[in-house]
Amino acid sequence: MINNCVFCSIIGHEIPSATIYEDEKVVAILDIAPSAKGHMVLIPKNHSQNIFELPEEEAAHIFVVAKKLAGIMKEELKCDGINILQNNGTAAGQTVFHFHVHIIPRYDNDEVKLSWIPGEYKEGEMSKLAEKLTERVKAL
Amino acid sequence: MINNCVFCSIIGHEIPSATIYEDEKVVAILDIAPSAKGHMVLIPKNHSQNIFELPEEEAAHIFVVAKKLAGIMKEELKCDGINILQNNGTAAGQTVFHFHVHIIPRYDNDEVKLSWIPGEYKEGEMSKLAEKLTERVKAL
Repeated sequence: MINNCVFCSIIGHEIPSATIYEDEKVVAILDIAPSAKGHMVLIPKNHSQNIFELPEEEAAHIFVVAKKLAGIMKEELKCDGINILQNNGTAAGQTVFHFHVHIIPRYDNDEVKLSWIPGEYKEGEMSKLAEKLTERVKAL
Repeated sequence: MINNCVFCSIIGHEIPSATIYEDEKVVAILDIAPSAKGHMVLIPKNHSQNIFELPEEEAAHIFVVAKKLAGIMKEELKCDGINILQNNGTAAGQTVFHFHVHIIPRYDNDEVKLSWIPGEYKEGEMSKLAEKLTERVKAL
């Protein structure tokens, strides 16, 4: 529980929210400024700032719950698609610094923008980078 | 293993890829058309089309691996932020119909667009929708 964290305040029932799901580890609420009606935000009860701080057992549970909620969203809202989006850092669009997962209902030709300009690698560059990253993974 | 699925072909080593991580359940590769260098794609070895088809135990494992890879990405690339993005359905930007998770390095003022126009609920509308969704969650 962190002072001045809006999600900690929601979890502690100091700020009201439209709760959809709650268990011992997570809460899912409706986003108050949704991309479209039904846009959900899934929040672990323990305060982690981002994915780097999030304990592994919470990560595992959260994505299972996200999967279940996505299924319900699809059936109830009859949306055309769903994005799962999780932002870490201001540069990535994170605005509340308590880890959370957006579950976003999508409709053909809606106004949600999720795009980038595809880049490319020079010859040999990709395998070199992969090798460097693989070395780090091995040290996990 | 599904014919004509590019990710199944990568997993089966019929198509080369820059692999970063592999275990019995998942493979992580570098995206060949990256938002920025180091952009990773995490793929379960079993073919599920989307999050709706994905088995729960795979969902749990995938997000733990995503968390680990995000940590490595941040340290190795020194990026300013990271997005975890998972698209389901053409309307959501899915182009390969084998479930996958993007791990996207972000930099201040980069060209990645992840945005929507924030909507709002009429009075009473949000709690009514939450109630309806909660009923479905209870039936899980």
